[in-house]
Order: sequence, then structure tokens, then C-alpha cells
Amino acid sequence: MKSAVVLLSGGMDSATLLHYVKQRLKVRSLFALSFSYGQKHSRELAMAKRQATAAEASEHSIVDIRFIRNLIAGSSALTDDAIAVPDLASLSPAERKQPSTYVPHRNLVLLGIAAAYAEAHGCADVFYGAHTQDAYGYWDCTQEFVDNLNTVLALNRRLPVVIRAPFTEMSKTEILRIGLRLDVNYANTWSCYRGGRKPCGSCPTCVERATAFQTLGVKDPAR
Amino acid sequence: MKSAVVLLSGGMDSATLLHYVKQRLKVRSLFALSFSYGQKHSRELAMAKRQATAAEASEHSIVDIRFIRNLIAGSSALTDDAIAVPDLASLSPAERKQPSTYVPHRNLVLLGIAAAYAEAHGCADVFYGAHTQDAYGYWDCTQEFVDNLNTVLALNRRLPVVIRAPFTEMSKTEILRIGLRLDVNYANTWSCYRGGRKPCGSCPTCVERATAFQTLGVKDPAR
Repeated sequence: MKSAVVLLSGGMDSATLLHYVKQRLKVRSLFALSFSYGQKHSRELAMAKRQATAAEASEHSIVDIRFIRNLIAGSSALTDDAIAVPDLASLSPAERKQPSTYVPHRNLVLLGIAAAYAEAHGCADVFYGAHTQDAYGYWDCTQEFVDNLNTVLALNRRLPVVIRAPFTEMSKTEILRIGLRLDVNYANTWSCYRGGRKPCGSCPTCVERATAFQTLGVKDPAR
Repeated sequence: MKSAVVLLSGGMDSATLLHYVKQRLKVRSLFALSFSYGQKHSRELAMAKRQATAAEASEHSIVDIRFIRNLIAGSSALTDDAIAVPDLASLSPAERKQPSTYVPHRNLVLLGIAAAYAEAHGCADVFYGAHTQDAYGYWDCTQEFVDNLNTVLALNRRLPVVIRAPFTEMSKTEILRIGLRLDVNYANTWSCYRGGRKPCGSCPTCVERATAFQTLGVKDPAR
């Protein structure tokens, strides 16, 4: 594989993925793609930039799709000021399967744009850092979602692009273990959904991140 | 069906679809969605606005995704000044299956955004005016594309949205026949890919439009 597009949010998982694609898969030309979609935690984008630089990406684009914030007003705790980001501890079993931090069809839109970008660059592979959340989840982060989307993309008569999501069956702990071996600098990643000056420590992604570092007995350099 | 999102380009097919959904399917709340994606024929958007008004749509949004023009530079005659829109007569058999007027993954991106908009409005149906081109075609205008995409969307745990494309097995002539019965004002539609002050008459969509009107023995009010 000579080139690949990597969806890079600036969080732990996609940062690990970027370095994994570069070091393990030996992809020479990395096209990193990040999105400003009105997320409260847009601090992640500065981290995406640092990771792209660290991985010597050929290109890193931050695409502005903040229009989506208006189209989906009232639908997600990640983009709507009127909906508070919940603590993980407060989520009911039903909410864990479908938390308020879900953003309607966001991942389909991001992957569609990434596939367009890939095709235009003659690049057949798009890497996506979806993983198995231990305590909550999203339908558009599952391997089934990726597989079904690939069935759509395979119809392309010009250049069928394939979404590759090597982490869908891994937990954040397993991803962190890989990333530590790859020397990923986790000080330059951002996870907290609340997007304040410091990570809140109690939102779903903060808790999951803390669990991963604790499980491996490593101090989180971003805290 | 109380409400529906309709993808409305401002061309003949989607204009017919809008009125079809309103009059035949008796949908009360229409959410029409148009896109500015850097198309040379952005004149179609003014026509979309007129059609949305004529159909008394509850909302009509024109979403600006012109960023995609840069991401896919060099890939499509519809968005790239350096690539001329071909005449239909000049297309080889191979080009008819995969013409240069194809825009990489555009329809996937538009449908993804439409699905997000639909979900946020509690609306389970998105209408899409893809049809059988008689003389050329696109992979993302086929019923197979729609069916496979619906398999992806069915995984949604909150509100599975369904893409409905009632025209995929119809030619432009058949669509026009329906639209004439619905009293669609075709003076307020724009087809020509070249997007000049007047329709060129020789690009693929101009030829196909002319054929439809000629076949039914009707004068095109836009000419």
C-alpha cells in the first residue's frame, strides 16, 4: 500500500491508527483528514495537526463542515449547547447502547467525504479508528457498519475504495498498548467530550481513557 | 408518511420527485435539501428554490459543501474548470458507463447529510431522484447502490432512515410523463451541465432532456 487516507480526530484511537498505518503497514504517503463539525471538543483538532506532523503526513486537511451543527440541531450532546455531555456513570443500560453523545450519521458523512478525497488521490484505502467501547457504543463504530459500507463502495466503477478499521474489535486498552509500542505521544491527543481547558475526568471518553492508562499501569501524559 | 426529506438539485428529476412526494404520497411536511458543491451549473439552485416554494416545502436548505471541490480537484468535469464537460455524442461505450461528469462519492455524501438532517427532524424517509440514464450512467444512481446504502442505515439504533428512490428504474421520459400530470413547471428547472446562460443542447443531460420532451411531443418551456 503506497498511500492511504486516515481519518484523524486528534483523539487517542485515531492518533494511534495514524502511526500504526505508517510504521506497521509501511504506508509511504499519508493523507490525514480531520473535521470541524461544531464539536464542543474542537481542541482535538490542534492535536490532530501535531500528530499529522509527527507522522510526516503528506497532507493534512481540516475540513469545515460546521453547517451540520444547524442541520442536526437538538440531536447531540457533542454539538448542541442545550444538551449537556453526560457522565459515564449516569448512563442507563439503554443509553449505553445509544448515548446522547452520538452525532446523527456523522461517521457516514465523514467516511463519504474521506472516500471522495481518497478516490481523487488515486488511493484505495481509508483508515478509520472505530473501536469497541467497553461501556457504551455507537452503531456507526461497528465492524458490521464498516462491512456494509464497503459493500456500497465496492459498486464504484472508477476506483472502489475500502474502509479499513483494524481496531473495531479492540478496546481502548489494547489500542493504547499498540500505541505505546509505536511511541505515540499521547500528550498530543485530546479525548474529553466536554472540551474545557482540562479533561473533565467523568465523561464517557475521559473514563474510558483513564481506564486504559490505569490498566496498563502507565501515567497519562496529558493529565 | 407525515414528513420527508427530498434531495432537490433543481433539475427535472428531483423537481418531479418533490411534487410526486407531495401530491401522490400526500406527505405534509417536506424538507427540501439542495447542495452547492462547486458545480458549474449552480444555476440549478435558483430553480430548486422556486420548486421548493411551489411545493410549499416546510423548509428548504441550500447547504454549502464547496470545500469538496478542492478535495476532489482534477476528478470531475462538473466541478473542475480544467476538465471540459463532454458532448454526449463524443462519449465512448466505456465513458458512458463512467463519464467524466461523475463526481467522486458525491451522492453518498449528499445522502449521508440528508440522512443526518432527516434523523434530527424525526423523519424516517429521504427521497432521492436517481433514475436510469438511457445513454450513460453512474454507479451511485443505481437501485443496487440505494439498497446497499439502506442496509447500512438500517443499523442505526436511534432512527433507521430509509432512502427511497422511486425513479431508479425509470427513464427521463417516464419521469417527465409523471411530472406533466402533476403540473410541474419545467420552466423552473435547470439541466445543462455546462451552466452557461442558456442550455448548451449537446451535453449528456441536455440531450437526454431534449429526448424526453421530443418523445412526448411536448415543447420544453425552459428553451
